[in-house]
Amino acid sequence: MSVSFNAIKRLLIGQPFPTRAEIHERLDKIRALAIFASDPISSNAYATEAIMSVLLLMGSAALSLTLPVALGIVVLVLLVVFSYIQTILHYPDGGGAYTVTKDNLGVRPSLLAAGALLTDYVLTVSVSVSAGVRAVTSAFPETFDYRVWMALAAIALLTWVNLRGVRESGTIFAFPTYAFVGGVLLVIIIGLVRYFGLFGVEPIVTTLPVIEPEEPITDFLYIWLILRAFAAGCTALTGIEAISNGTQAFKPPESRNAAKTMVVMGLMAMSLFIGISFLATHLHLVPMEGGESILSQMTRTVAGGGVLYYWVTLFTTLILFLAANTGYQDFPRLSSFLANDGFLPRWLQNRGDRLVFSWGILVLAFVASLIVIIFQADEIAMLPLYALGVMLSFTLSQFGMVRLMGRIAHLKPGETMQTQVTTIHYESGWWWKRALNFVGGTTTLIVLIILIVTKFKDGAWVIVLAIPVLFWLFRSIRHHYQHVAESLRTKELTMDKLAEIGDVVIVSIADVHRGTLRALRYAKRISKNVRAVSVVTNREAKDRFLRRWNRFPEITGDVELVLLEYEYRDILTPLVEYIEHVNNAEYPNQLVTVVIPEFVPESFWAQLLHNQTANLLRFRLRAYKDVIVIDVPFHIPG
Amino acid sequence: MSVSFNAIKRLLIGQPFPTRAEIHERLDKIRALAIFASDPISSNAYATEAIMSVLLLMGSAALSLTLPVALGIVVLVLLVVFSYIQTILHYPDGGGAYTVTKDNLGVRPSLLAAGALLTDYVLTVSVSVSAGVRAVTSAFPETFDYRVWMALAAIALLTWVNLRGVRESGTIFAFPTYAFVGGVLLVIIIGLVRYFGLFGVEPIVTTLPVIEPEEPITDFLYIWLILRAFAAGCTALTGIEAISNGTQAFKPPESRNAAKTMVVMGLMAMSLFIGISFLATHLHLVPMEGGESILSQMTRTVAGGGVLYYWVTLFTTLILFLAANTGYQDFPRLSSFLANDGFLPRWLQNRGDRLVFSWGILVLAFVASLIVIIFQADEIAMLPLYALGVMLSFTLSQFGMVRLMGRIAHLKPGETMQTQVTTIHYESGWWWKRALNFVGGTTTLIVLIILIVTKFKDGAWVIVLAIPVLFWLFRSIRHHYQHVAESLRTKELTMDKLAEIGDVVIVSIADVHRGTLRALRYAKRISKNVRAVSVVTNREAKDRFLRRWNRFPEITGDVELVLLEYEYRDILTPLVEYIEHVNNAEYPNQLVTVVIPEFVPESFWAQLLHNQTANLLRFRLRAYKDVIVIDVPFHIPG
Repeated sequence: MSVSFNAIKRLLIGQPFPTRAEIHERLDKIRALAIFASDPISSNAYATEAIMSVLLLMGSAALSLTLPVALGIVVLVLLVVFSYIQTILHYPDGGGAYTVTKDNLGVRPSLLAAGALLTDYVLTVSVSVSAGVRAVTSAFPETFDYRVWMALAAIALLTWVNLRGVRESGTIFAFPTYAFVGGVLLVIIIGLVRYFGLFGVEPIVTTLPVIEPEEPITDFLYIWLILRAFAAGCTALTGIEAISNGTQAFKPPESRNAAKTMVVMGLMAMSLFIGISFLATHLHLVPMEGGESILSQMTRTVAGGGVLYYWVTLFTTLILFLAANTGYQDFPRLSSFLANDGFLPRWLQNRGDRLVFSWGILVLAFVASLIVIIFQADEIAMLPLYALGVMLSFTLSQFGMVRLMGRIAHLKPGETMQTQVTTIHYESGWWWKRALNFVGGTTTLIVLIILIVTKFKDGAWVIVLAIPVLFWLFRSIRHHYQHVAESLRTKELTMDKLAEIGDVVIVSIADVHRGTLRALRYAKRISKNVRAVSVVTNREAKDRFLRRWNRFPEITGDVELVLLEYEYRDILTPLVEYIEHVNNAEYPNQLVTVVIPEFVPESFWAQLLHNQTANLLRFRLRAYKDVIVIDVPFHIPG
Repeated sequence: MSVSFNAIKRLLIGQPFPTRAEIHERLDKIRALAIFASDPISSNAYATEAIMSVLLLMGSAALSLTLPVALGIVVLVLLVVFSYIQTILHYPDGGGAYTVTKDNLGVRPSLLAAGALLTDYVLTVSVSVSAGVRAVTSAFPETFDYRVWMALAAIALLTWVNLRGVRESGTIFAFPTYAFVGGVLLVIIIGLVRYFGLFGVEPIVTTLPVIEPEEPITDFLYIWLILRAFAAGCTALTGIEAISNGTQAFKPPESRNAAKTMVVMGLMAMSLFIGISFLATHLHLVPMEGGESILSQMTRTVAGGGVLYYWVTLFTTLILFLAANTGYQDFPRLSSFLANDGFLPRWLQNRGDRLVFSWGILVLAFVASLIVIIFQADEIAMLPLYALGVMLSFTLSQFGMVRLMGRIAHLKPGETMQTQVTTIHYESGWWWKRALNFVGGTTTLIVLIILIVTKFKDGAWVIVLAIPVLFWLFRSIRHHYQHVAESLRTKELTMDKLAEIGDVVIVSIADVHRGTLRALRYAKRISKNVRAVSVVTNREAKDRFLRRWNRFPEITGDVELVLLEYEYRDILTPLVEYIEHVNNAEYPNQLVTVVIPEFVPESFWAQLLHNQTANLLRFRLRAYKDVIVIDVPFHIPG
């Protein structure tokens, strides 16, 4: 059993890495960018369209507002990127919103940030995988019925790749990110050349179809829709924070490499975003509900239906799977931070054979699969749950940085100070950094409120509910660990506080055979006071038992035989009651020893052929704090 | 945990009965008839129709052959009933085909009979429940989408009733059987009165619609179709053998009561069968594929669509569920016989709290549910698998009786003889009984061949495959038990053959705390040679460990500390390797003791928060035949 399980594991996961190999498993910048940037970059597949769909409610003329709204989001992104570069530089050990909030605002806010991020990471996987599958089912409608299976297969594939280790996944995933960015950039450049008629190219001429708003636009409705358009475009922000959590995954010098990658990522994502938004409005494209996407329309208008079109379509699908992959980087890492602080089960903190957080990966895969099944791989239905968590963590993280800059403000030149998790130095520019963080934090707070208000009844309530539940869970888990540590403490332990060991050994035997004789012999070796207990249900069985018992006086001679007569079939109950009685009445507050002879069949299947008396008895005896259980195995030769 | 599980069990199943209550749980004849007869009687809901559907292939004129074919089946039923009355009288302890075959033809044929019967009992449940649900969905087509759930709910209900015990199920089930028989009998009587115009009633006049055969009827086809019609009608025979298996469920005198019930059951079922077949052909009814059933047509023609019609429809549904219930009597009982002989897992032989074979009931419910799910509760698709098993067991059983009568033939008047399981006496009429059994056995053998040939590719191949597989399984299980018994035998056991006990105790500890100190103290009590083994993965952890270790010299003083340095994360491997090394190199062929300190959290959920190191270590150590494991629990107070 255990051998073959191991062999399968080796085949799937590969040979284990020694702990000292950890440093080699880190990412260079090219690979790190591919891994961390895929999430924000992939949102270009739908972010512009999300803005335009809302603006279209005010008629097609309002689509010209797309670029201004997009620019507003770019400003927000720049604020957030700036804030996170500060975070990366001040927290070189990584940790992002959770660590920053904990260090500056306290434990409770940090748990809110953590809960928010965890929900979002799970949704990153479910949403991106489902969106990727939708790209496939749009191209091949006959596969639609298998969408859930395809999404689950994609999750399984991602899980497998990530269990094998981070470096390899970087290598596998680098190409599609750059292929997507390159493809879309090429489309934008050709589009700009053709739109402006540069280099003597014939300019494209398009006209905007006239679509009237369904209801008259009041001032209030105007502002409300602009806000909603802005909120909808905020999906472009998801994933930006991932690098700050993952600083430790970079090659040294970690902070500098991470900060540089963050800048490149922000520039890359925003170039695409502005380019797409500019072309989409100036080429007079109109979003079609349930129809061709804006990105697809744009690519076709600019470059026709040829190679470039299929290139962009293919790599849109692939980068969405990569975006899902960022969840596989972020979730296990944040879980391990939380586990390390005692807010999640300890085993989430252990690195597996390949030095990745295997359990975190598996938990993520499980929950994401569950969401995919519940929502039948329909990412549109999942979207209202998405981006809330990220916005809450942005807000907390930035106000945390405001606090940190406030502490730096109190330092004199050359002075340093130790916070809980990092060291801060005097900085001359603290005041403008602080102001920018404050503006950023306030902005994301407002966006958060807009998101909750506009999406609440479409599903955002699930997250509004889930975050406090996670908060409560974190605190309960932590409470449990503290309680255990308290109970196990050796501080004021003196010898008289340890339970006495009662001089009695009870051997449970159903029949006299090689296995039970072996157990009796062992029991006699460790105590002079051995009692063999057997439950008899009829006279015949009793007589047969006694005949066999008397055949081995060398062993059974000085053993007290206790026969319990019982008229029901559940023989465990009288056994356990007898043991309880001995413990309570004869040896109160002392340890009582029970020997369970167990014969071990040659295989798992053979095990199924036997009453599980030994296992059940052991399980029942777990309830008694002063009962020691000794398993004496007897192996049936194969 | 265990308390609440027990409370739920008590609520569902009721208080346990003492073993001596067994005799009181037996059936009187009225209840026994209701339980055992529902299966053969319920087949009247479709048996006539099954014959007519085949004959119709020769055109509607051929439907007049229905009554002759039905009479042929009645003759077959009478032969089988006769054979089984002989069985009941000669085998008062019950056992039916399995016991009779084993006693007269040997073990191997008896295992074929047992496998055949088990497959058929499972199908009885799946087919009858599905047919009952179909009756409901025919009446209320809007429930069709829930048919699988309804069938599973019916199985769950039957399982529950049967787990509560046989007497109560008799009481619950008696009424519908008699209501069905009464209703159909009334329909037949009214039908006969109206057909013959008795008592001055206006005779019914009907005409047979003319339907031509699709292809010309050759002599060969004619015979083939008659045989197929006969085979199709044989579903009427399923369930007849149940009483012989269940003789022990009757009140004493068991044999006489069982035989009387058998006769009444045969007469009752065959009266209905002949009555329905007579009226169906003389009223010129024609079976309609996928349409109204013959029974329903007949009832409507004779009695209109009033109260009697709904009465028959309702109780048709209920009696089909009762037929499923016979599977719940037969399967667990036969399984217990087989388990008693070592051909099935022992636990199938244990009576549960309510003196029923609980595990057999649960296994049956599980397999039947599986079939319902696989076939989506479509009993038509299951039918080709059905009745094969019963026919094989009839054949074996009757040839067994032929053999038994042959042994009786050798006895002189007044002489008795002991077979393996029963006592036989001189009988004067042995020769005609033997001849009848021979005719019966030959007939069922021919029917079996017809069934296999005509239904093979529609699904009968599954059973043709399943019976040898079960045969192999029975023999493997038996072989395993013999092997175990051989290994545990004390016959030639001398003391020097029992393994020596090595004077060494290895305590696995991860950290020094109250739990591990308690374990160390216990270890020192049972041996002078105690070694504490701990796996260290870095220097820091090692130093902290040593500091704590040295704080308790009263306990750790004379314990040898073994620190294993290891550079992978899987700490179980070095532990197990160390234990293996001690066992092989230092104490070869002696018992080595390992103490595992385990802390027991206050709840099941809390358990999930901890590494399962203790459980995993115990599991891995099971592979070593000379390693004794001692669990020293430390309870975390709640």
